[in-house]
Amino acid sequence: MNTFIEDHLRLISSEIENIPLESEPAGLYEPVAYCLKNGGKRIRPLMTLLACDMFDGDMKLAMPPAIGLELFHNFTLMHDDIMDNAPVRRNQPTVHKQWNPNTAILSGDVLFALACRYVGMVPDSVLRPVMDIYHQTVIEVCEGQQYDMDFESRQVVNVEEYIEMIRLKTAVLPAACLQIGAIVAGANDEDSRNIYGFGELLGLAFQLRDDWLDVFGDREAFGKQTGGDIIANKKTWLYIHALSLGNTAQKTLLLDAFSGKIHDDQEKVNLVKGVYHDLDIHHMALDAMRAYYDKAMERLTQIDLPPKRKEHMIVLADMLMKREK
Amino acid sequence: MNTFIEDHLRLISSEIENIPLESEPAGLYEPVAYCLKNGGKRIRPLMTLLACDMFDGDMKLAMPPAIGLELFHNFTLMHDDIMDNAPVRRNQPTVHKQWNPNTAILSGDVLFALACRYVGMVPDSVLRPVMDIYHQTVIEVCEGQQYDMDFESRQVVNVEEYIEMIRLKTAVLPAACLQIGAIVAGANDEDSRNIYGFGELLGLAFQLRDDWLDVFGDREAFGKQTGGDIIANKKTWLYIHALSLGNTAQKTLLLDAFSGKIHDDQEKVNLVKGVYHDLDIHHMALDAMRAYYDKAMERLTQIDLPPKRKEHMIVLADMLMKREK
Repeated sequence: MNTFIEDHLRLISSEIENIPLESEPAGLYEPVAYCLKNGGKRIRPLMTLLACDMFDGDMKLAMPPAIGLELFHNFTLMHDDIMDNAPVRRNQPTVHKQWNPNTAILSGDVLFALACRYVGMVPDSVLRPVMDIYHQTVIEVCEGQQYDMDFESRQVVNVEEYIEMIRLKTAVLPAACLQIGAIVAGANDEDSRNIYGFGELLGLAFQLRDDWLDVFGDREAFGKQTGGDIIANKKTWLYIHALSLGNTAQKTLLLDAFSGKIHDDQEKVNLVKGVYHDLDIHHMALDAMRAYYDKAMERLTQIDLPPKRKEHMIVLADMLMKREK
Repeated sequence: MNTFIEDHLRLISSEIENIPLESEPAGLYEPVAYCLKNGGKRIRPLMTLLACDMFDGDMKLAMPPAIGLELFHNFTLMHDDIMDNAPVRRNQPTVHKQWNPNTAILSGDVLFALACRYVGMVPDSVLRPVMDIYHQTVIEVCEGQQYDMDFESRQVVNVEEYIEMIRLKTAVLPAACLQIGAIVAGANDEDSRNIYGFGELLGLAFQLRDDWLDVFGDREAFGKQTGGDIIANKKTWLYIHALSLGNTAQKTLLLDAFSGKIHDDQEKVNLVKGVYHDLDIHHMALDAMRAYYDKAMERLTQIDLPPKRKEHMIVLADMLMKREK
């Protein structure tokens, strides 16, 4: 990380801390404050600011939509955690565990509403394109979450289906964050499309890293249950490739594990991890991640700006690929 | 109802039927289609159209936000029904019963997203004020739902608190529907505030009618469980007034009924209805409703337009007060 990025992450955190939340009704806003206080990496708003800066825009104008996009991201986490029955997020109980599912539904809804309001706080001249991208993105993110849930109860998911699911669920949001920053800065249509493409590919690489960390990451650093995807029968990139490459015994083990035949969660995680290890899925996933990263970088190259202007963006992309959490 | 209103209700229904919903993922969009197909009164979008027409605007321009506001209303129903554990809506199983709570959460979210997109489909010249009103309204509706849930577990709620709750939960949305229609038509600020005030007061009257129908309505016509509010321990206008006016025995009965001491739902409903009857709460509620209605009409009078232009609006308001469902 460089000073510029650190400074802007601090600025984002301070903006989020200073969001004027109503105090009443407490049952609605306390879970929102809890969720926002618990932090997270704040990568998405950083992307909006960096994209704005890359196109020589005024980052102050990009701050409200940046915050809005982070609020939207937090809303999706709050609702996804209910649907996935996830107990822990960022080393803290999830909202539906700390309170209850109804609270997580409604506080999530108001967080979504706040997100919309902040995203709309852009100059009038760009309000239309910003809202268009934002609305398209939130719809796609819902579609991605639905596919993700659908895949849990399907025995076979092919890799194209998986990539499309994570594109929707994970990759379109960072893409939109970048594009909105670029639009606020007055980027032209072609550049704006290229920065979106860069973000989408980077988002895919990011999700493969996430899949990898879920299995091979350090629980303390990661802030979530390790092996959570295995426990939830998520057909991740790792699982899909192991199932396609494994021998009969390995396939049977994976299919059994993912159809509820192994009741102890820890045993299930260990067995599946064993198969991943034997098939060297660990390294294959890192290679696939690198391939998306390289493609993302190609899109960045297509943007006609001096290399100097792209420096922070490259630092950020690099940081995302090396992250341990 | 007059022909003009009937025609426009038909137009709204046809627009809603023709919303181009994606077919995939089916698990996301089928519940949305189910919810929209089940109908409802479509009063809110009608309000947007009528307000636009009243100010001599082009109703075609008001149709997309009208539809968006109806989608938003349906989103709130889908999520509220989960939180209230309501089994039936419009004579059909609710989405979380027909599918499951996760489906109702996520299909609700995408419905909210679609709502935002449609509300934004207004001419650029009014996009900013329309989005401002809309975002403020959705936040207030969430606050209202939270107060409603909070009140279920409180023994005493005073009438001011109750009115503020229904103002947020129910009345600000019709107010916003009218105001958005007026803004699309180019109404000035004062008229726009007056039509909002009219809608808010009418919304309060509407909710008192709803409280009344929940207890004294005909189940078939109403399309919901009768006595549902009593079963759910909702401190409605009826309950609050009965509790304040009842003698010791009646108060004890109400407090017992609303604190889980009567286990049989039907017995609970009958006992509480008996108290309402003995105290003549039935007529008091209708009087209170009429008082809000009269205040609403005063606000309408303040709008400087020839009486002729207000005719349809008055027919609609009248229709809402006399409704049996």
